Amino acid sequence: MSKFPKNLLKIVEPDLAAVEKELSLVIQSPVDLVNEIGLHLVKAGGKRLRPALYLLCAHSGPSERNELIPMAVALELIHMATLVHDDVIDNASLRRGKPTANARWGNHSSVLTGDYLWAKAFSVVATTVDVRKLTILTHVICSMCEGEIIQLQESHNPDRTEDDYRLRVSQKTADFIAACCTLGALSANLSNSEIAAFQEYGYSIGMAFQITDDILDFVASSEQLGKPAGNDLRQGIVTLPIIFALRHSVDRDELRVLIKDENMSYDKVNRGLDIVLATGAIEYCYSEVQRYLETAKSVLPPHIPAGVREALVAIADYIGFRQN
Amino acid sequence: MSKFPKNLLKIVEPDLAAVEKELSLVIQSPVDLVNEIGLHLVKAGGKRLRPALYLLCAHSGPSERNELIPMAVALELIHMATLVHDDVIDNASLRRGKPTANARWGNHSSVLTGDYLWAKAFSVVATTVDVRKLTILTHVICSMCEGEIIQLQESHNPDRTEDDYRLRVSQKTADFIAACCTLGALSANLSNSEIAAFQEYGYSIGMAFQITDDILDFVASSEQLGKPAGNDLRQGIVTLPIIFALRHSVDRDELRVLIKDENMSYDKVNRGLDIVLATGAIEYCYSEVQRYLETAKSVLPPHIPAGVREALVAIADYIGFRQN
Repeated sequence: MSKFPKNLLKIVEPDLAAVEKELSLVIQSPVDLVNEIGLHLVKAGGKRLRPALYLLCAHSGPSERNELIPMAVALELIHMATLVHDDVIDNASLRRGKPTANARWGNHSSVLTGDYLWAKAFSVVATTVDVRKLTILTHVICSMCEGEIIQLQESHNPDRTEDDYRLRVSQKTADFIAACCTLGALSANLSNSEIAAFQEYGYSIGMAFQITDDILDFVASSEQLGKPAGNDLRQGIVTLPIIFALRHSVDRDELRVLIKDENMSYDKVNRGLDIVLATGAIEYCYSEVQRYLETAKSVLPPHIPAGVREALVAIADYIGFRQN
Repeated sequence: MSKFPKNLLKIVEPDLAAVEKELSLVIQSPVDLVNEIGLHLVKAGGKRLRPALYLLCAHSGPSERNELIPMAVALELIHMATLVHDDVIDNASLRRGKPTANARWGNHSSVLTGDYLWAKAFSVVATTVDVRKLTILTHVICSMCEGEIIQLQESHNPDRTEDDYRLRVSQKTADFIAACCTLGALSANLSNSEIAAFQEYGYSIGMAFQITDDILDFVASSEQLGKPAGNDLRQGIVTLPIIFALRHSVDRDELRVLIKDENMSYDKVNRGLDIVLATGAIEYCYSEVQRYLETAKSVLPPHIPAGVREALVAIADYIGFRQN
């Protein structure tokens, strides 16, 4: 799976098609290599979760049509830029089952392509979007960068708490998804309380999305993930399943030593996975995912179009069941 | 030298002091490491050429005061972001005689800090600057990224022409300096022909600035540069002195082989420097610098305040004589 099942997103299907077309257009550059990497990234696909959420929320009210596609495109470009730089930082060679940009074109071109995508994102919205929305966008990007830096700083540290984790995940993932929903609600000219509700919906599914990601690193196969399983553990990223295991496992001392190991062997990664899986970590994490998804569904404002509500509920349910 | 002699910039001195203060403020983050790296970058100084040019041009007419400092700050943040990422790409360990961010905090934190600075730059201008100026800014950043990617692609290639070089330098350096002047002229509400003149001034001193940089890599000592001399040659960056030598040196075949060498020894770098210096390359490049600077001075619009004109002429002269 790389995209959401089509029927989930029926209302915004034409918009998403326009986003896809526009993405291919805006990444075009007179420089062949920029084109090549950009096209690789667009074609590599992805769920287009962020533009889809933005568009759905924007369809909750009478939206300003001329800003919808540019904003949706900018949100995906920003997401793509973070992925390209993340893959450089993680030394990742596969994403969605395909070679990463850094694996194919090297770290240097990838850093510059990420920068190019940042600038393109702003260039797409600079002419159409109002100051309030631009401010939300720039603010959340600063916060995402901080979240990534915190993650880097906290790696290989078995003393990080569950609160540290939640703060990091909100900065790294959930706040941006919340911003997509907030921006959509603003485009739909909703009331302040409705905007806040959409923001909470976005934040909650964002948290659920990232926790699911962290679970999948333990329970999915490399084929399902399109990248090696056990990646977080190998990189010393102390995710929720690990934090749970560090509290509850009988082998917690051994796990602490493993996490501090900056050159973890294949066998040690497998041993770490076994220690975590032997606890109730996965069950606990799934219960947390469910809790966030229940919150997400419960906070949706009452007076939004039935089609939008159905789609947002379906997306929440889908996140709870996703396998990759 | 890290800054321009104070008397050059008297008119904009209070503004530049405000920029300095604001730079220290905007890079503040709740994340200690972000603060630490940001402060290191701000304190490392630099000439503040881009904000100075913007402010000087903006003082040519009745400017909108509330956007001056944010725009000047954003221009320096963008410049800082490109430097941080450039140093990662070049594996540089020294800049302005101080350890680079990547040497001190690693490539990963540096990539993320660069991203943070991009976003901060936009966040600073998003609320105060109009669409036309934002568009100029985003457009020129895309172009800078393309220029850097071209440079990467063209490295170790002795067949690059002087035209290739000029195009790359305009994208990489001169267009951004031109944009600083254009934006200043726009802030001063000048006429279209005056704006175009400032743009040409900026472009011309930008070209002169970069060619001087490329000369200094051959003639300045590492102490003067605050980074190792012969760096471009070692990295296979085919600059103007090299292009000249490839056309005119009796040892041009040997130089071609050297440029293709991706792991150049210290001795080979020195041999390459000797080959280039034995030609008239440096004299030719300095004559090009002078040509650009003459153009810069000659295109300045007639009816601008005497103080602004003097400062812009002095900056042009200064660029022709700078030693680092």
